[in-house]
Amino acid sequence: MPLDVLKQVQDEFLDFNGTGMSIVEISHRSTAYQDMHDDTIYMLRKLLQIPEQYDIIFMQGGGSLQFVMHAANFLHHSGGYINTGVWSDKAMKAASFYGKVYEVASSKEDHFTYIPKPESFHVEEGTDYVYMTSNNTIHGTEWHHFPSFDVPLFCDMSSDFLSRPVDVTNFDFIYAGIQKNVGPAGAVIGIIKDSLLQKARTKLPLMLQYKTYVEHDSTYNTPPVFNIYFVNKVCHWLDDHGGLAAMEDTNKKKAAIVYGAIDESNGFYSGHAQRDSRSRMNVTFNLPTEELEKQFITEAAGQHIIGIKGHRSLGGCRASIYNAVTSEGCQKLADFMKAFHQKH
Amino acid sequence: MPLDVLKQVQDEFLDFNGTGMSIVEISHRSTAYQDMHDDTIYMLRKLLQIPEQYDIIFMQGGGSLQFVMHAANFLHHSGGYINTGVWSDKAMKAASFYGKVYEVASSKEDHFTYIPKPESFHVEEGTDYVYMTSNNTIHGTEWHHFPSFDVPLFCDMSSDFLSRPVDVTNFDFIYAGIQKNVGPAGAVIGIIKDSLLQKARTKLPLMLQYKTYVEHDSTYNTPPVFNIYFVNKVCHWLDDHGGLAAMEDTNKKKAAIVYGAIDESNGFYSGHAQRDSRSRMNVTFNLPTEELEKQFITEAAGQHIIGIKGHRSLGGCRASIYNAVTSEGCQKLADFMKAFHQKH
Repeated sequence: MPLDVLKQVQDEFLDFNGTGMSIVEISHRSTAYQDMHDDTIYMLRKLLQIPEQYDIIFMQGGGSLQFVMHAANFLHHSGGYINTGVWSDKAMKAASFYGKVYEVASSKEDHFTYIPKPESFHVEEGTDYVYMTSNNTIHGTEWHHFPSFDVPLFCDMSSDFLSRPVDVTNFDFIYAGIQKNVGPAGAVIGIIKDSLLQKARTKLPLMLQYKTYVEHDSTYNTPPVFNIYFVNKVCHWLDDHGGLAAMEDTNKKKAAIVYGAIDESNGFYSGHAQRDSRSRMNVTFNLPTEELEKQFITEAAGQHIIGIKGHRSLGGCRASIYNAVTSEGCQKLADFMKAFHQKH
Repeated sequence: MPLDVLKQVQDEFLDFNGTGMSIVEISHRSTAYQDMHDDTIYMLRKLLQIPEQYDIIFMQGGGSLQFVMHAANFLHHSGGYINTGVWSDKAMKAASFYGKVYEVASSKEDHFTYIPKPESFHVEEGTDYVYMTSNNTIHGTEWHHFPSFDVPLFCDMSSDFLSRPVDVTNFDFIYAGIQKNVGPAGAVIGIIKDSLLQKARTKLPLMLQYKTYVEHDSTYNTPPVFNIYFVNKVCHWLDDHGGLAAMEDTNKKKAAIVYGAIDESNGFYSGHAQRDSRSRMNVTFNLPTEELEKQFITEAAGQHIIGIKGHRSLGGCRASIYNAVTSEGCQKLADFMKAFHQKH
């Protein structure tokens, strides 16, 4: 998280907006809360240029509950999934409780090293929606051009939300767990098109219906107040720093620094993702041996470069360079990579 | 929330436990997180004397998602509900998606002014569980003696959790949204008996199965880290202040101060709840006219006594005197009530 934001939250932790109360104790039915809630929606709309025909909602349960909810609401006949790794795979499994699921495309056979190309897409007759994951944290791949379909398109943007501008109108439903770029784990932002909402299943408990969140402005029950407040702070911070175009520019430069260290290593470091599918959020790579990878992670920690170990399901190394990581941080990692290479 | 806890959270907001990172950014796969997670479970077990055959889990989605989950997991034939107000009513409605629901007892016809007596209970053959709400925030009633049944007993303790000792072994499943006495909105604590878990429906998406949370120690997906951390702080604060027996003692005294002001007013203030069903968390009362109630709320605000307006569904006045409210705060309210009465 940006240090400026953390300091602001700390500063006003005992007195939210002159209420004399902490943000963790104000009522979600108070004007002070509602003003902040409204402003957060306003700021998200501004940053992503979200048109009026889309509603913005806040939910709980993480991306994992969305794996359930998107299908509970919209899977009537069949759902098509672009399988780019663990997250889309989990979404497909959870969705299978509500109807037929199938792969529109997949890079599974190639260890999820790339984002499938449109020419490989196969959408079956009667498909309710196509579902995709914009960034794959574990394998380090990311969509750089979003596809279009004749059926509604859903996108899990949990791990690159607010890291770049996105044309929201290309999608019918976007959701993002906030814990990577936007705030503390515990809230999910949903952006949902009005026309899609009409197609939702209604024989469903209220808490599992998107409609409930839209109709009650996300306060049917107590919303995750602190998390939404944090989103508010991050949105203002982004806005003050040039918005999403500037963020994308910075993120491109940051990623280029780390991928540069891989590409200039003559194969000592090998990237997991194919070049045109490389993620700007998660750089995944291997060293010649597991032994060297262990040593790399240990020595990195000695330089205060932490969290560099790959996801337990894939192994190897991974540098997560979300919005709050600075260019200096990326340069420090690249320098360390070069020095480590020279030593071994 | 206790001021001591708020200050502690503020103090260490930029550096959690020497990690150099904020609690809102540490990985839930880190040792620093896991240690805190384990300690929170240990502290809950200690405070409530929870035996080993019960698991303690953390979930998201508030009490409202529990209205869905308890039935999704355990309603096979029929579920019996003790209807004591809005919350049990909502639980029953959500549960009806999964099977038959019926009222074991209800105080609805009497405007939920009391907690039903055991002699009025009617449990049908083939009932999977009986469900109850320990404290009713809107109507201001609370169970002072818990009932027992031949079938598993479930209890929503969201609004009086950790306000008093509870014999956990009387229940098969307890859950509590943490936002009243224990922490910021966004986490639910579940206490679930192993033998009950065996009876759970398994044809259900993983995120809706209690089993998933138990088997993965609540980290199948990213848990609400900040909220759990806050629970940890509150548990230590309670432990440092004599535990739940001391808390109950204080809460009894606090409630006596406010109810005293009602009872000594010769009917100027009239309590909504019958005497033997009075809540120690939410004191609900009316004044002779709506006009006077409005004036009461306005003048109270002038004395910095806020949040005294009754729930929008019931009207009147309500003093919520959760754990963090002090005896002095209650005395201040009682004094104001006396002064207001004398004036009008």
